[in-house]
Amino acid sequence: MARLIEELRKLPGIGSKTAQRLAFHVLRSPGEDAERLSEAIREIKKHLRLCSICNNITDVDPCGYCTSATRNQRLVCVVEEPTNIATIEKTRSYNGVYHVLHGTLSPIGGVGPEQLRIANLLTRVAEGADRSGIDEVILATSPTTEGEATAFYISAELHKTSSAVKVTRIATGVPAGSDIEYADEVTMMRSLEGRREF
Amino acid sequence: MARLIEELRKLPGIGSKTAQRLAFHVLRSPGEDAERLSEAIREIKKHLRLCSICNNITDVDPCGYCTSATRNQRLVCVVEEPTNIATIEKTRSYNGVYHVLHGTLSPIGGVGPEQLRIANLLTRVAEGADRSGIDEVILATSPTTEGEATAFYISAELHKTSSAVKVTRIATGVPAGSDIEYADEVTMMRSLEGRREF
Repeated sequence: MARLIEELRKLPGIGSKTAQRLAFHVLRSPGEDAERLSEAIREIKKHLRLCSICNNITDVDPCGYCTSATRNQRLVCVVEEPTNIATIEKTRSYNGVYHVLHGTLSPIGGVGPEQLRIANLLTRVAEGADRSGIDEVILATSPTTEGEATAFYISAELHKTSSAVKVTRIATGVPAGSDIEYADEVTMMRSLEGRREF
Repeated sequence: MARLIEELRKLPGIGSKTAQRLAFHVLRSPGEDAERLSEAIREIKKHLRLCSICNNITDVDPCGYCTSATRNQRLVCVVEEPTNIATIEKTRSYNGVYHVLHGTLSPIGGVGPEQLRIANLLTRVAEGADRSGIDEVILATSPTTEGEATAFYISAELHKTSSAVKVTRIATGVPAGSDIEYADEVTMMRSLEGRREF
């Protein structure tokens, strides 16, 4: 019992009180429930891995996006985290594939280009230049300081790697449904700079 | 006393209790303070008017923006309210002039094109087409339903008025400093659609 409480306590947001409560719940619940939970925890580490092409979390390698025949394999959207894919998929307006960096450049946090999955993005684009290829790389890192720095770095590297590939950046601006009254200076400035013919 | 309380109560956000408190304050304060407040209220209606060119609130007609020699008179930014000018000025990156609509189209609220200051924008552009002219009109209404509808309507009217003028729309997207994790579907979609070469 103490061992289970101890292990549960390591999960984020779970203190000793909650761990105790969870442990007692497991104790009281039917044997097959406990078995399924135990099995599910074991399975996730056994079966889930990173896609060797796009670094997304997947149970088959390459992942579903990278092998999909209906998605545009010539359009790659670069995101910080696997969860960002869900944000983009929810728009139902993107039909390309992805590349997950697993973080952003952060000199203070000790995260350099080597710590991110940038190398296999460059290989992917370089190889693509020979073969059927990649037409466009969308840098969809967040418009935060780290996200911008990361986009800037990758853009420079991509231009060194291939002159054929188009590198784009998602728009920074006033969010949909929001009044410009509430826009901060930087957002308003970027929204003006990013204006497009209407 | 009752008359002052009654008049103060008409101001927005001021109920009878507050009106009473304010009236007592005026009563107790030195005579010259009350005189200055009274004068200031009278002055605002006497001296402030709308600029005959851009409809901004001004004490001289035409307003300071419309007569400025250092501002680009060929670039016009269309905004909903006079307060929006402050939002754009704060960016310190815009050097054109303005056009204030004093509202947005709202069929439910009974606001049609006639209720907004659209007619003198069209005249301004039409006259500009003959003379030195206006190069670009930036539609900086908010990316709300009403703001979008208003931008769409004005864009169509402008294209009818002059084929030479460039009509642009400010960018909708993820706000600066914000993580794309928190972007709603519409904002994310518009941010992707609005991507630009980097």
